[in-house]
Amino acid sequence: MKINYPNGTKLETKKIGDKSRGMTFEHDLNTSNEYYRIHNIAIIYKKPTPVQIVKVDYPARNKARIVEGYYQTPSTTDYNGIYKGRYIDFEAKQTENLSFAFKHIFDHQVNHLKKCKDMGGISFVIIYFKKVNKVFMVDIDPFYELYLHGEKRGISIGDLQNLEKEKKAYDVKMGFAPLIDYIKGIDFLYF
Amino acid sequence: MKINYPNGTKLETKKIGDKSRGMTFEHDLNTSNEYYRIHNIAIIYKKPTPVQIVKVDYPARNKARIVEGYYQTPSTTDYNGIYKGRYIDFEAKQTENLSFAFKHIFDHQVNHLKKCKDMGGISFVIIYFKKVNKVFMVDIDPFYELYLHGEKRGISIGDLQNLEKEKKAYDVKMGFAPLIDYIKGIDFLYF
Repeated sequence: MKINYPNGTKLETKKIGDKSRGMTFEHDLNTSNEYYRIHNIAIIYKKPTPVQIVKVDYPARNKARIVEGYYQTPSTTDYNGIYKGRYIDFEAKQTENLSFAFKHIFDHQVNHLKKCKDMGGISFVIIYFKKVNKVFMVDIDPFYELYLHGEKRGISIGDLQNLEKEKKAYDVKMGFAPLIDYIKGIDFLYF
Repeated sequence: MKINYPNGTKLETKKIGDKSRGMTFEHDLNTSNEYYRIHNIAIIYKKPTPVQIVKVDYPARNKARIVEGYYQTPSTTDYNGIYKGRYIDFEAKQTENLSFAFKHIFDHQVNHLKKCKDMGGISFVIIYFKKVNKVFMVDIDPFYELYLHGEKRGISIGDLQNLEKEKKAYDVKMGFAPLIDYIKGIDFLYF
């Protein structure tokens, strides 16, 4: 179904393809999300980083300049949105190692993902292993289990490959458009 | 279903009820969302306001202070999340008048809400009419229609009351917990 919306949509096309793969994982995910939006496949956005604003100056009328602010810990996860009518929620992480250490994700983020899943949503963690240029998605249920009760302090590529056999994780192939086609992983894991 | 999550959830209870109704509409919505989260009814959050960060100082190791930043126009809407397995997306507005003027909502926000609805989500605008202390929700479809093709430059309380008869709008009753029980409106409009 192709729908023409009066404004806004067209503008988004500009950014696609003007940066090559691998700049940053976040950039690549955002570009993939743009691709999904333009093609009416999914509507998924990265949430803005929360900033605690302490002091604002007004150098001109209607112009506010923040002159003191601090980064805050996000209440939830990086990304959420809708695909095939379902609620999607995920956290994106990257690591230099061959195992993603659990200390690099917050308790409240893991809990948030688990709650979203329990409420009928689709929740996962997507991890970029820089060293081997690989991206894996893992459903929140096994991740939560390992995070809470696992003997190891992280989740390795080997763990993820084993989970893929049970349809609980997915090795995301890199492409050109979209760069990180994780929607294929959502189809594989949930549909 | 009552689930005990290891961390985070308990802390949220602190804020509930320590401010009386009417402080600000945003505060009241956030408090209502907290109520819904604590009671495992819905998981809905306000997205952080996006800030363009220009300059950051590091007065101490691991401490970043933003010393130049600017508010940005949000790409999407204020609130999204999940309820009864469905994706929820809405924009919250308030007005001093008896009609909400369309110029106070962005094109790209109306389009975003419409796209979410078309993709199977639940999308609406929730408006606080300060003068009469009334809150109305209106489904994005009639709102979009009036916004694009309507003869008037806004949507009035009268319009909303008429739309309520067709189950396209809802007069949200104010309560104590939650302050603004708009989930009742979601039930009325969509379930």
